[in-house]
Amino acid sequence: MLADNEKIEDLMYKGLKIIQRKGGYCFTQDSILLSHFVKAGAKETLVDLGTGSGVIAILAAKKTQGKQVIGIELQERLADMASRSVALNGLGAQVKIIKGDIRQAHTFLSEGSIDAVCTNPPYMPKKRDSQSEIDICKNEITITLQEVLQSASKLLRYGGRFYMVHRADRLADIIAFMRAEGIEPKRLIPIQPTAQKGIDTVIIEGKKGGKPSLIFCPPLIVYDASGELASYARKIYNLE
Amino acid sequence: MLADNEKIEDLMYKGLKIIQRKGGYCFTQDSILLSHFVKAGAKETLVDLGTGSGVIAILAAKKTQGKQVIGIELQERLADMASRSVALNGLGAQVKIIKGDIRQAHTFLSEGSIDAVCTNPPYMPKKRDSQSEIDICKNEITITLQEVLQSASKLLRYGGRFYMVHRADRLADIIAFMRAEGIEPKRLIPIQPTAQKGIDTVIIEGKKGGKPSLIFCPPLIVYDASGELASYARKIYNLE
Repeated sequence: MLADNEKIEDLMYKGLKIIQRKGGYCFTQDSILLSHFVKAGAKETLVDLGTGSGVIAILAAKKTQGKQVIGIELQERLADMASRSVALNGLGAQVKIIKGDIRQAHTFLSEGSIDAVCTNPPYMPKKRDSQSEIDICKNEITITLQEVLQSASKLLRYGGRFYMVHRADRLADIIAFMRAEGIEPKRLIPIQPTAQKGIDTVIIEGKKGGKPSLIFCPPLIVYDASGELASYARKIYNLE
Repeated sequence: MLADNEKIEDLMYKGLKIIQRKGGYCFTQDSILLSHFVKAGAKETLVDLGTGSGVIAILAAKKTQGKQVIGIELQERLADMASRSVALNGLGAQVKIIKGDIRQAHTFLSEGSIDAVCTNPPYMPKKRDSQSEIDICKNEITITLQEVLQSASKLLRYGGRFYMVHRADRLADIIAFMRAEGIEPKRLIPIQPTAQKGIDTVIIEGKKGGKPSLIFCPPLIVYDASGELASYARKIYNLE
C-alpha cells in the first residue's frame, strides 16, 4: 500500500485517512476549507480538477451525498497515490481517480453533463519552466487559471455548480475568467488567517449560466488570537 | 441661498456644510465612506461622476490635497444645489460643479488627462421608466454601470485612479466591466453594517492600465453591537 517515504495521515473526519509523501506535494488547509463548501446531491457527479493527493475528492465523498466523485490528476505519481488513498478508505465504488490532462477532461468525461466541479488549482502565474512535482502543483506550468475555467465550463451542465479556492490577490482574474466562460460568480467567501491579518484566500462558488447576483459572505477567520482554530474553522475540522 | 424645502446640514468634517432638500434625493453614508478613501495630490484633478448634492466633491476638497475637484451632475436641480453648497463652504476656487451628462464628460473635459475619478453611481438595474429625481439617482435610468466605467476610462490618464462605492451583490459586474474598460481592480474594501450582518456594500479602487494584483482588505464594520459607530467608522466621521 505504501511506497518509499510515504506515510498515512488522519484527515480528522469520520475516520478518513490519506497517503502523503515526505518531500512530495502535500495538501494544504485550503483544500480542507474548500471541501466544506462543496455540495453534491445523491444523484449527482462531482469532478475535482487537479485532485493531487485526492484530499478534496475523498473528503467530498463523505461530506456530500454525491453519487460519484471523480478526481483528475495529470501527474502519474500523485494520481497513483490518490488511487491508493481511495482504496485505503474503502471508497472505490464512489470515488474514481483518473490520470489525465484537465484540458482534455471533456473528451474522457461526458461534455456538458457534470453537476458540480471543484478545484484547488495552481495559484501562481508561471515564473520559470520547472518539471518538479511541487512546482507543477503550485504554479501555472501545465495549466493556467483560464484553462481550468474553460475545462470546468465544458464539463458542467447548464445550472451546474463550480467551487474553487484561490489567492485573494487574483480575484479580478478569477471573476473576469469565470464570466468569460459563462460561470456566474454566485458566492464569495473571503478567508482571513486571523482577525488582525489581511484576506489572503477566497473560496468562490459559481453557476453555469447563472444570473448576476453575488452573495458576499463575511470572512471566515481561521485562527483566533491565541493561535487556536477559530470557532467556524473548528466546525470545518469537525472539532465541535 | 436656500430654495423651498431646503435645509443646511453639518457634514461633521472641518466645519463643512451641505444643502439638502426634504423629499429630494439625499446623500447616504456610502458617499461619506467613499470620500475617506479617495486620494488626490496637490497637482491633481479629481472628477466625481454623478455628484448629486456634491457631497463627495466637497468632502474630497478638504480630505485630499487635490488642486481641482470637478463634480458632474445631469439633473439641473441637484447641480444647482451642489453649486450653492460649494459656495456656502467657500470652495469655489477648488471645486467646480458641471451640469452635464457623464457619458459626454470626455467632450467637455480633456480626454485621457484626469488623475482620479470617483463615483457613487446608481446602484440598481433599471426596473421601470421613471423621471423622478430619486429614481434617477438610485436606478440605472439615465446611465448604466458599464457606461459609468466607459466614461471613467475615457477621462483617466494612463495610471490614473478610480474609486467607486457600489452594492456587494454586483461585484461580478463591477470587476468584469472595470476589466473591460482597462481599469484594473487594485483594492477591495468590503463594508459590513455590523459584525453580525452580511457584506452589502463594497468600495473598489482601480488603476487605468494597472497590472493584475488585488489587495482584499478586511471588512470595514460600520456599527458595533450597541448600535454606535464602530472604531474605524468613527475615524471616517472624524469623531476620534
